[in-house]
Formats: sequence, C-alpha cells, structure tokens
Amino acid sequence: MSGREFFTARTVSAALAGFRPARRTTVESVPLELALHRVPAADVAAPGALPGFAKSTVDGYAVRAADTYGASEGLPSYLELAGVVRMGRAPAVAVAPGGCVAMPTGGVLPGGADAVVMVEYTAETMAGTIEVTRPVAPGGGLVRADEDVAAGGMLVPGPTAAGTRSRTAAGVREVRVHARPRVAIVSTGDEVVPPSTRTLAAGQVRDATASALAGLVTDAGGDPVIVGIVPDDGPALQATLSAAIADADLVVVSAGSSVGARDETAGAVSALGQIWCHGLTIKPGKPTLLAECSGVPVIGLPGNPLSALVVFGLVGVPVVWQLAGCSTPPPQPSTRARLSRQLPSAAGRLDVVQVTARDGVAEPLSVRPRCCPS
Amino acid sequence: MSGREFFTARTVSAALAGFRPARRTTVESVPLELALHRVPAADVAAPGALPGFAKSTVDGYAVRAADTYGASEGLPSYLELAGVVRMGRAPAVAVAPGGCVAMPTGGVLPGGADAVVMVEYTAETMAGTIEVTRPVAPGGGLVRADEDVAAGGMLVPGPTAAGTRSRTAAGVREVRVHARPRVAIVSTGDEVVPPSTRTLAAGQVRDATASALAGLVTDAGGDPVIVGIVPDDGPALQATLSAAIADADLVVVSAGSSVGARDETAGAVSALGQIWCHGLTIKPGKPTLLAECSGVPVIGLPGNPLSALVVFGLVGVPVVWQLAGCSTPPPQPSTRARLSRQLPSAAGRLDVVQVTARDGVAEPLSVRPRCCPS
Repeated sequence: MSGREFFTARTVSAALAGFRPARRTTVESVPLELALHRVPAADVAAPGALPGFAKSTVDGYAVRAADTYGASEGLPSYLELAGVVRMGRAPAVAVAPGGCVAMPTGGVLPGGADAVVMVEYTAETMAGTIEVTRPVAPGGGLVRADEDVAAGGMLVPGPTAAGTRSRTAAGVREVRVHARPRVAIVSTGDEVVPPSTRTLAAGQVRDATASALAGLVTDAGGDPVIVGIVPDDGPALQATLSAAIADADLVVVSAGSSVGARDETAGAVSALGQIWCHGLTIKPGKPTLLAECSGVPVIGLPGNPLSALVVFGLVGVPVVWQLAGCSTPPPQPSTRARLSRQLPSAAGRLDVVQVTARDGVAEPLSVRPRCCPS
Repeated sequence: MSGREFFTARTVSAALAGFRPARRTTVESVPLELALHRVPAADVAAPGALPGFAKSTVDGYAVRAADTYGASEGLPSYLELAGVVRMGRAPAVAVAPGGCVAMPTGGVLPGGADAVVMVEYTAETMAGTIEVTRPVAPGGGLVRADEDVAAGGMLVPGPTAAGTRSRTAAGVREVRVHARPRVAIVSTGDEVVPPSTRTLAAGQVRDATASALAGLVTDAGGDPVIVGIVPDDGPALQATLSAAIADADLVVVSAGSSVGARDETAGAVSALGQIWCHGLTIKPGKPTLLAECSGVPVIGLPGNPLSALVVFGLVGVPVVWQLAGCSTPPPQPSTRARLSRQLPSAAGRLDVVQVTARDGVAEPLSVRPRCCPS
C-alpha cells in the first residue's frame, strides 16, 4: 500500500505559509561586486557620514541666506563675489556677510555659507558683484554632510539589489551575506534518460526537467547541482536522496510520471524524514510532495515537466529565497488581465494557465482537453 | 559654447522607438546549460519528433477504441488482458480486437491500440478480464508520436527562458546564440574617486554609479566592463571614449554632476560620432545624451546616481537586449496602483517616482522638494 493515502492535499497558500524552512545557509564575506541579489546576513552600517560634507545641489552661489531676504526682480540684493569652488576640491575661500562664492553642483559648501542660490536667479551685473533676485532660505540648494546617512547609520537592512549603490558610495567594499543555497536536483523514472542521449529507444524520454529546474534555481539565487537520474527502485532512490540531503540545502525530486514512480519517491522520502503534505490543490501540479528530512526541505515534483516547473516556480522558488536568508521573498511580477474566453475551474483549486497577455487581455496558449493526471 | 544648445530634448518613448542600434553581437555556439536568457541567433529545429512514440497520458489500459463504444456502468465492455507495458521499455505485446494491455502514464502505446482508457473506468472483475464502464474515442488518453513537435519542426523561434525545457527534451545540446554584449562603463568627474577610497577628502564622492550600472547590465544579459574614472578633461575623455568604442558593443558614460562635466562629455562624444539627442523629457534624468559613434551606441547619463539608474533602466536596458539579438526586449514588470497622495507633474514629461506598492496603493518613498537639476 502506498503512502499517498495517509496525507491530505493542501492549498498552495497553505504551503507558502506553512512549508517554510528554518534552515539558513552559512554566512560569508564577499566583495560588493559579487553581492548583487545576495541577502545581507546583518545590517550594513555606514563607515562614515554621506555625502561627508555639505554640498551644493545646484549651479549657483553660496551665500548667507539672510543676505538674500527680501530680494526681488525690482529690488535685488547685491553680493560681493569672493571666489570660486572647484569640483572635488576643498573651498579656498569662505563667505563673509554680504559676500558670495560661485559653486558648481556637487561642490563643497564654503565656510560661512548656509544656502546656495541658483544661478538662474542671479546675474553678474558688474565684475565681482552678483545680483540676486530671489531669496533663499537657510539649507536651500544644498544637502547636509550627513543627509544621505550619518556615520554608523544603517545602509542596508534587508535584501535589495538597489542597495548596491548606496553601499558603494558609502565606501563599503565587502559585505557579509548568506551563501547561495545548494539545490540538489534528482531525476527519477525508469523511462528517463540523460538529455545528451542522441537516439531514443521506444518509451524513453530525455530528462528535460532537470536543466529547466536548474535555470529557475539560478534565477532564484541558488546553485543547482544536477545529481542525475535514479531508477524507480526504493533502495537506490533512498541512497541517492540520503546523500543529497547530507550535501544540499534543498532537495528537489523530479519524479517519474507513473503512479509507481511517485509511490517510490514518497516511500523513500517518508523513510528519511517527515512528509508535510502529499498533494496540492493546484492544476497542473497536484501530485506534489513536500517534506523535511534532517532539517533539509525536500520537494517531490510531478512527473509532467510543465507541472513540475509550475509547482517549483510557485512553491520552490520562495524556499530558495528563504534558505538564502530572505524571510519575505520578492513577489513574482503580476498583472491583471481579462481572459479572452471562459475557462472552467474547480472550486478550491488554483488553476495555472499559460497565456499571452496583450492590452489587458490574456489569451490562453492551449486548452486542449486531455485526461492527464498532472 | 557648449554643444547642448544645438539639440532638442526628446521623449522617452521617442528614444525607445528611435534610438535602436542596428548593431548585433557576434553569434557563438554554447552548451544548452549556458544558454539561459540568451537570444537564439537562428530558429532551433527539432532533430526528431517528440515524444517520438505514441504514449499514454493516463494510468489505464491500451485498447481499440471501437471495443469500448456503448460501454456503461450497466452494460460494460469486457476485454481480455494481454499483458503489461513497462515504463521506458518497448511493448512486448500488441492489442488484438477484444483485447487490452495495462499501461502506466508515459508508457509506449502497443501496436493495435488507438486509445487508452483510464483505470478509474475499469475493474479487473475476473483474473485476465478487464471490465470497461465508459467508452473512449480514438486518440483518447494518449499523445501522438509527433504531438509535441515533428522532426525538423521549430522549437525556439525567439528569446525564451522557458524554451530551455523543450530544447533539452528534444535532444538539442548546443545552440547558436548571440554573444553577451560588452558594455563599457566610463565614469567622469573631477570629484569622483574609486569606491575603494577609504577616507574622502572634502568635495570627493565615491563612484557608486559604475557598480550599480554593472548590476543592471548583468541582469540585462550584458557583460559590464568598468573602465574607470576619467577627469573632466576633453582630450583625456575623448581618448578613453575612443578606446571604449573600439572595444565595446555599448558605451555608457556616467557623467559628473556639474554642468561643466556634462559639457565635456557632450563635446567628446560629438567629436567621435553623431549625437541623436541631448536631453530627455523625464524627471529625474533630463540631462541624458544619446549618440552613435562608429556604429556603437553611446549613452551619457546624468550625474545624479539615482537619475543615472532610472535612465539606464528605461533606455539603456532595452539597448543591451537589442545588441544581444532581441529586437523586442521583454517589457519591465508593471502594475497599476493608486498614489497615496497627489504628486505634481509637468505636461509632456515622464515622472519616475520611487514607491512602495501594497494592496494597490503606491506610497512615494520621499518627495522632498529639492532644487536639483537632475
């Protein structure tokens, strides 16, 4: 008697909420360039304030704001030009009352100044005298020395690709991140042969699922390890799974498509750990097995390649993210569209349909009625 | 006088429609595992039919459909069990009139059979006799030998990650794809120093943009080449750009933030080729330069790091895809959401605002009014 009868099917949302590994990969230090899409193991703090000095955000003149109060087209303020700030250099002059210093965008604010007036509201009417036709408030036209981040401030609290930018600007060159999860991909099925097989004998099927899964694993930030093909034989499957569990952070079994192959997988997995659910209320993808063996999550996928990829995309990809330290994996891109025609759906079941979406209309790719237990 | 005055600003959609390189990277053969996200240079044809043999899509019995016509619960058909088909093996028996052969899902259809009846609609009432309680039509419960693809049929017409699956199943091990575009990233600005700089002198800024751009290039399927930092000096910039154009498929200049630095970039680029536009009607990102030099697209980005990343994501990423052979780059994931508060926007300008979107509501990250020419 197979183990299938002992377990109830669960919904995909129950699996997403409940099948969450406690396991996390080890922490390693990597150069920032290699940290793209990696999950920080700890907050990344700023070694110093950023930008590190008060600087102009406009081309114009550094001033004492009070010297511009009341200035207008009709009654400008006149300020004495004391010098020029050059990009990337410390200012050589300060701003005295009634004075000003020419500034490029990004230049260091000279001593004495508390604002920068935009060049658009000025004119050099006489050599050495700047006419200002609009007032500027203190802090106008500039950013403070610690406006981006104060020294010791938190730069990166969680997973973010965009974070790369601020970390580099802050002078962080190496970050402690979670290692990429190792994902062992085991293929089973007496009919399955390596993809390199040139000519198929009757009944044989090339193992297409393993390399497609490897692509999904890579995109999710994992390192796929293609273990190979195991025959539908209990002891052999159990030995392979046992070795994979000892070596990997996640084990994915791409089961053969026959009921017998699925039963062998369930038997081998239940001998090695705890089955969390056997069966998902999803189409395609119903014959899915979720388990944990020695702290390592194990996902038994349906034999149909499309079903296997649908289930792994929905249920497996978030697990890869979680293993890598990301408790709340990024949501898959989504959009709303109107189906071009009615599709049947059973109550309580998630139906996944491939479509081409254009102008808010989703056209199902192929809805061939086929009695397939996928 | 700067070159800026000679050119009108263009809209982002005009840039997407008109700033399209004719250039394509060279074609190379790569193993299928390395072809993920690569663009095929030619249609990939199937070496043979798939699945290659008629096979069952259900667990059940291979039959001659006519033998089941009229079968019902009340008046079943009785068929003689001639044998069993094993997974991955050629059938040892055929189906004679009035006979049937037990089948696993995925098994090879034996000679003589034209349908497979699901096990659910059968019972083995006596040893060797199968009772069938529902009729099956010819072709029911099976797929034809060439149902997935006929020999020589087109497997992959264009760029598709999902295509990996069918290509592997079809026994394709190597594909001809476009090489990854080389994208040279040149940083300019007298104030810009390498990101490894431990302590900043007054006015200095670490080059954060180059490594963030490298991340976007990698994600778009390109190979980033970080050229380094060039001072705001015409001849030096022109020499660096000239070498980059000779070596790369796309040159990206992350300009200094001062007007002077932008003018130097525009001057150097216009000496080397044709400026297509100077200025985009986008916020942030207005001071963007698009040009072509010796057939190589050149993108001059604004000095503000955020503006640079916004513009490169919108305008640069599609160019990387096109260089890699993909004429219609995949659209960026998008969603519709309601802004949590009113935001001002100028007519005819594209405003890009960073938001956090939750439950259909988009909350702007920070709308600090700052007079910044970004």
